[in-house]
Amino acid sequence: MKPFLGPVLVILAQWARLSLGQGYPFTAEQERNANRTLSVGYVVYHGYTILDVFGPLQFLSDLSWPFNITLSIIAKEAGPVHSRPPPHHGPDGSEMDMSKMVDAQIVATHTFETAPALDIIIVTGGVGDLTLMEQKDRSIEDFIASRFDKTEYVLSVCSGVGFLARAGVLEGRSATATKSVWGYVTNFGKNVTWVPSARWVRDGKVWTSSGVSAGMDMMVAFLRHVYGDPVVNKSVNGVEYAAVVDPNWDPFSVVHKVPGANMSIPMQGLVGPLKEYP
Amino acid sequence: MKPFLGPVLVILAQWARLSLGQGYPFTAEQERNANRTLSVGYVVYHGYTILDVFGPLQFLSDLSWPFNITLSIIAKEAGPVHSRPPPHHGPDGSEMDMSKMVDAQIVATHTFETAPALDIIIVTGGVGDLTLMEQKDRSIEDFIASRFDKTEYVLSVCSGVGFLARAGVLEGRSATATKSVWGYVTNFGKNVTWVPSARWVRDGKVWTSSGVSAGMDMMVAFLRHVYGDPVVNKSVNGVEYAAVVDPNWDPFSVVHKVPGANMSIPMQGLVGPLKEYP
Repeated sequence: MKPFLGPVLVILAQWARLSLGQGYPFTAEQERNANRTLSVGYVVYHGYTILDVFGPLQFLSDLSWPFNITLSIIAKEAGPVHSRPPPHHGPDGSEMDMSKMVDAQIVATHTFETAPALDIIIVTGGVGDLTLMEQKDRSIEDFIASRFDKTEYVLSVCSGVGFLARAGVLEGRSATATKSVWGYVTNFGKNVTWVPSARWVRDGKVWTSSGVSAGMDMMVAFLRHVYGDPVVNKSVNGVEYAAVVDPNWDPFSVVHKVPGANMSIPMQGLVGPLKEYP
Repeated sequence: MKPFLGPVLVILAQWARLSLGQGYPFTAEQERNANRTLSVGYVVYHGYTILDVFGPLQFLSDLSWPFNITLSIIAKEAGPVHSRPPPHHGPDGSEMDMSKMVDAQIVATHTFETAPALDIIIVTGGVGDLTLMEQKDRSIEDFIASRFDKTEYVLSVCSGVGFLARAGVLEGRSATATKSVWGYVTNFGKNVTWVPSARWVRDGKVWTSSGVSAGMDMMVAFLRHVYGDPVVNKSVNGVEYAAVVDPNWDPFSVVHKVPGANMSIPMQGLVGPLKEYP
């Protein structure tokens, strides 16, 4: 057998053994998270947006080697969940049949009834929310409302923040949302401070990101918060992800003409490898 | 029912109707691709890397609304394929049991025997290639070798290029690979010009990307080549993806100490929204 120089994940295992970041000022929260199992639940539905789920999941997956993480994919029913949007109505009231689109299935492991205790809830965005609202289906909102107080971190990607708003858990908080359908999403919730120019917003235990790809940058920032920079930064560099690390850089709020967008934001942002630690 | 301001995909439908980019110098190839169905096949295996598949797939999925695209997920057996790496041996020969990692399943729709005619083949990277090699399983290499001449575009992400190299289709071509396990991947193939600093490399119909996240930037460049900038750029801005558009920007080749890396590359790169067309 040829000698293997080893894949990314073997290197990750080595970091865990080597205890990266000796002398790094880990917070008490980071020390605690490194020494327990974090139970993550991803809330999905038919018509979810692919990268909303699988972008952040790449980083979670990588870190489930050096750290202990369990994952539940939670939907109304267990089994395959389709990215292809189900039938719904468009802005002009006409029927939208998007069945020509390609489909990616993710397998839901749990229902709202069978989901285990969760430390982290992540709510995906997607066109499917239109169908759920037409059906007056509030099962996701009810699940979020029932679990919010018991969950340490609650995250949303893109239009997923609409479920948080409708569940009532954003009252008195700041949040952001996808800029491509800003007027639609920010219609929901009461007493929410919507931040028009933000790649992501953290308000206490609630993290909300802008559209689709921004979920990856939020997840990188979130994981640095949860586990500290040393292992997370090396993991992110391992998958060669050039993260946006400035939560205020949001040229897409300008592109999508969001009312109140910060027009003085530089349209080009600097990204690159994250700092590594010995 | 509240008036919907509409999701991303409804806007995409509008672009298709509005024929974005009137007057744009579309190539003959782009005109042809806009007016036919492209059959895309994604080659996966147990232990595939999540973002290698689902990052590029987000852009393909979005473009399957304005354009006609079909997707086949192709594996040795139809059914669920796991991202969690199967048992294999590490660099020191020890058994690697990574069953503690979280798992994402993608459902294979076709086998190598039942796969339809394909215009585009994309080969994912992943730790699972170690297991396949230990088992002397050459089914992916055989599939690529048998389909290469009949396929118009062949792409690989991360260590997926190893399958192309072992299939013999890179002979006389330039290619790149993940920088995190550069020495491992570039061990394969004969007469391949491995480019040590590249986010992605195009050589004729073969496109190869660097590690994991680089697959998204390659896919954006590839789709601009296939369909032209106007619709693709608007689609990429729709999902708020800040693409790396310079194929030579590769600071991760420096981070991962790749022999021959271009040390004069700026470590920080400028990304931002892509140019939009009326």
